[in-house]
Amino acid sequence: MRTSIATVSLSGSLTGKLDAAARAGFDGVEIFENDLLASPLTPEDIRDRCADLGLTIDLFQPMRDIEAVPEAEFARNLRRARHKFELMRRLGADTVLVCSSVSPQAVDDDALAAEQLSRLADLARESGVKVAYEALAWGRHVSTYDHAWRIVEAAGHPALGTCLDSFHILSRGSEPKDLEGIGAIPGEKIFFLQLADAPLLAMDVLQWSRHYRCFPGQGGFDVAGLVRHVLSTGYDGPLSLEVFNDVFRQADAGPTAVDARRSLLVLQETVGRAPLPDPVVPTGVAFAELVTSDAEPLSALLGSLGFTRTARHRGKPVALWEQGEARILVNTGPAVRRDVTQLAAIGLESPDPAAAARRAEALLAPVLPRRRAPEDAPLDAVAAPDGTELFFCATGRPGLPDWRADFEDTGPAPAPTGIRRIDHLALTQPWHHFDEAALFHRGVLGLHGQESVDVADPYGLLRSRAVTNADGSVRIALTVGAAPTDQSVQAQHIALATDDVIAAARRFREAGGRLLPVPANYYDDLAARFEFADGELETYRDLGILYDRDAHGVFRHCYTRTIGRVFFELVQRDDGYRGYGASNAPVRLAAQHGVRALTGG
Amino acid sequence: MRTSIATVSLSGSLTGKLDAAARAGFDGVEIFENDLLASPLTPEDIRDRCADLGLTIDLFQPMRDIEAVPEAEFARNLRRARHKFELMRRLGADTVLVCSSVSPQAVDDDALAAEQLSRLADLARESGVKVAYEALAWGRHVSTYDHAWRIVEAAGHPALGTCLDSFHILSRGSEPKDLEGIGAIPGEKIFFLQLADAPLLAMDVLQWSRHYRCFPGQGGFDVAGLVRHVLSTGYDGPLSLEVFNDVFRQADAGPTAVDARRSLLVLQETVGRAPLPDPVVPTGVAFAELVTSDAEPLSALLGSLGFTRTARHRGKPVALWEQGEARILVNTGPAVRRDVTQLAAIGLESPDPAAAARRAEALLAPVLPRRRAPEDAPLDAVAAPDGTELFFCATGRPGLPDWRADFEDTGPAPAPTGIRRIDHLALTQPWHHFDEAALFHRGVLGLHGQESVDVADPYGLLRSRAVTNADGSVRIALTVGAAPTDQSVQAQHIALATDDVIAAARRFREAGGRLLPVPANYYDDLAARFEFADGELETYRDLGILYDRDAHGVFRHCYTRTIGRVFFELVQRDDGYRGYGASNAPVRLAAQHGVRALTGG
Repeated sequence: MRTSIATVSLSGSLTGKLDAAARAGFDGVEIFENDLLASPLTPEDIRDRCADLGLTIDLFQPMRDIEAVPEAEFARNLRRARHKFELMRRLGADTVLVCSSVSPQAVDDDALAAEQLSRLADLARESGVKVAYEALAWGRHVSTYDHAWRIVEAAGHPALGTCLDSFHILSRGSEPKDLEGIGAIPGEKIFFLQLADAPLLAMDVLQWSRHYRCFPGQGGFDVAGLVRHVLSTGYDGPLSLEVFNDVFRQADAGPTAVDARRSLLVLQETVGRAPLPDPVVPTGVAFAELVTSDAEPLSALLGSLGFTRTARHRGKPVALWEQGEARILVNTGPAVRRDVTQLAAIGLESPDPAAAARRAEALLAPVLPRRRAPEDAPLDAVAAPDGTELFFCATGRPGLPDWRADFEDTGPAPAPTGIRRIDHLALTQPWHHFDEAALFHRGVLGLHGQESVDVADPYGLLRSRAVTNADGSVRIALTVGAAPTDQSVQAQHIALATDDVIAAARRFREAGGRLLPVPANYYDDLAARFEFADGELETYRDLGILYDRDAHGVFRHCYTRTIGRVFFELVQRDDGYRGYGASNAPVRLAAQHGVRALTGG
Repeated sequence: MRTSIATVSLSGSLTGKLDAAARAGFDGVEIFENDLLASPLTPEDIRDRCADLGLTIDLFQPMRDIEAVPEAEFARNLRRARHKFELMRRLGADTVLVCSSVSPQAVDDDALAAEQLSRLADLARESGVKVAYEALAWGRHVSTYDHAWRIVEAAGHPALGTCLDSFHILSRGSEPKDLEGIGAIPGEKIFFLQLADAPLLAMDVLQWSRHYRCFPGQGGFDVAGLVRHVLSTGYDGPLSLEVFNDVFRQADAGPTAVDARRSLLVLQETVGRAPLPDPVVPTGVAFAELVTSDAEPLSALLGSLGFTRTARHRGKPVALWEQGEARILVNTGPAVRRDVTQLAAIGLESPDPAAAARRAEALLAPVLPRRRAPEDAPLDAVAAPDGTELFFCATGRPGLPDWRADFEDTGPAPAPTGIRRIDHLALTQPWHHFDEAALFHRGVLGLHGQESVDVADPYGLLRSRAVTNADGSVRIALTVGAAPTDQSVQAQHIALATDDVIAAARRFREAGGRLLPVPANYYDDLAARFEFADGELETYRDLGILYDRDAHGVFRHCYTRTIGRVFFELVQRDDGYRGYGASNAPVRLAAQHGVRALTGG
């Protein structure tokens, strides 16, 4: 299907928006009138620019407060419409969006609305324009799609059809059966389809609409269900995104447009209209790669955690540290972002690395060079929205390129000391890329999103959401601050799974490691909330172990100090605990701020 | 009255919050439990620290989901409470907040609630603690203050009282008569009073409460009306601020605490409990002072606008430019913020400059030195929250210090060329200081706030609000971006009033000035929206004049290019137009971005 995007969904000048939409592969645009008014380009210039970029102008919008008004007012509206149809002729746009009236002058009279829309359509037809009439969710008298359609049907005018908008339909809390009426509209009378998703917020619908819309799959609406109904009518117009969002207004248009188009690709796949390569869900974490300019502190920390340096890369200054199934690469070679110790790449075990990369590429993920050097194994890799490199790995599987083959052994196999594997990886996202990241990890990698939670940091509110595979062997927690100034969440971490966190914490301490100190007040509160066996709480207090319970089981965890942007967590999950200790995160964050304040770090 | 603030209202570590509250002059604090849990200080340390700072601990909060639950659950709750009462003993806090239950286990049984709260109060009394029971607006069965009071009254326990919270009461859309029940509660049974304001948002009350509360006078609630009812009961506890706000969570605790205490001072004045010096409303703009490192471009621009350089400061490199009643100071001396041309100070004509300064000081405005140099006139001045210096002036009024006396004439009196006075000044506010600035200008200067409007900039959404005196001779427009990254609103401007904007624009152009170019599309849209006399629209288009109408009259205006952060506007208000051309702001902002893009500025 053809895809389109409203210029209001993107940030910047009109020309910048058009460029971004074209680069992201959209077929067309909706020209939002205010973008045109503010542009120094003439309508003819805009038409030519779109043509040069291979973009059609699928809609000019919006025209407001037209119908069901007293005759004198309607005469003024027709005068206004005449000017706009002339503008559309110059622009080369053949469809105009008319929103249901919110004017206090409008009367509740469907026959009058149909009659006046019909006269508007007469005028439109003379100018070669079609009118798409849409019910705003907060329209004064017309606020549902079926009401708007009844008026269009009554008018019976060839130049008048309806426009369906997923926000206006789904924000009214529509039940699935409420959508069945869509199937009764002839497809050729659906002149346009606008798509937006939104988080499920209980707030005034106008505010919700103007500030919180997002791309399909980023919110809580069943946009795909609605699209299925529309496609059942025979509608063959574009899928067009109309998203008003305070964040997108400020974000670079380029990445936003890519994100937008990815959401439509996933949506088309969901409704069976875009044959994408199937998702190849990762089955485990092959490795986590840290970059640093100084390997000493990391080596000391990994050593204290029981890791052994087992191998080194044949051609690059990269060391492999192992313990159980947990593998950490420490890269000290030249690279971008080398100034601070951080997580740069994740290896994901993949049943079919090449197919996983093909899907990622089809979903607009930047593909990284397969071989960094001629002698390297040809690995499939893409960049996540936050810049983290994702390698699709086939560790030790004959016949497939193996990243391990690039390494030569330098030490003995690691002694098992309690850490089994990487439990989860926590990545911080750039401020306006949180929803994009979640959609990426779900759409590209086929992971499932868990609930989003708010976490109070002493200096701001964080939002966190995890994506996982079915058996929990891949868990990635994405975190973002409440605002772009928020410096509190620059830390990333690697959580290591153990069956005995107490023993692991003791071994770490005996090996010279230092755990994050946890305030005594926290343990007094634990004592108030839970009953513990004799001595249990004292052990936690002594070691700095945090404790949480959910409906399934118990979670115990503790943290190392931070090096650069990275720290490690030791975690023990019992009885199917599913979370990440979010209720303890405020205490952890405050303790980390405290350490930073003390060390000036 | 005593004033208090909940630690959750401020950002940072607990010790930082206590310091900020003490420095701002609060008498006490509410300790929010999570702040204590996350603190490395013991309860005794916190008690001592508060004592050293002169702060009482007025409340420990919150205790949740206590009452109206099955007996086994209540036994666990009492166990938890016992731990917390011991903590309060160590902390030296004698009142605990108990919020009405939101637990799914809670039953709708007032007798059970009263009986269990009474048993809780028994336990509390043994520990020397009083229990203040509060209805959460989203409580499962108890959500109104009168319902909570009926339960407290039924319990009839000396250690059990109620806590009133303005957010929970006013967020339910209470009518004035709904508040009358407050007067029936004996004052000594109101154990605590928590205050917060909030913007009037139609959204889920829990989200509203957790993210959007603000200080009294910054939102839309009649907090003062509620406080009057409470005071009528004989309540003599503190006025305490409990404000959950995403922005305050990130803002420096120091300024937030000052802002908070100022809001309580204004509130106490409103209810007749704080004898502040009366407001002295300014009666005009004496001058606007620009600072710059290079006077040439500004001088050229002022010259083109018809200003004459009439005088210079006797001791500093400051030139006075005049035209009609409009006076602009151009300061090229050493100062902070000298790197970019900007508006640094505003002179306000004041009926009583010394009294105006006394009120500002009483409302915690930083007072600036009266004399900059021994020979200068002793001028009263304070700093606004954004750093702009406000001078209270008595221009040419015998017996009062006159700023003009510091200047010696250097040129002839200005020839009248159409500009009459400064119409308004537009200041941009730091991101999280918008509400603070509006409260400051209203509380300190006695100006009135006009409606807040949203304005779409190509790179983000701006919020703008004007404050004015009664006759409109002082108008200050405050603007802020939607997020701290927003670079779109760094510009300030000075709007100059004329009775003939067309003539003024022509003169400016003939004098070599360049007006901001306005896109042709804008005029096509004007033609669609309004009917004009022959040639009128062409004149606007030719000169770059923008046009707006409101219910009262017509507004015509145009803009100069920007120098540093400053530009000028020429405005003509006819027939009592009250606004600032906000509907034209998107076009102006896009044009300014366009000019910047072209010039690389």
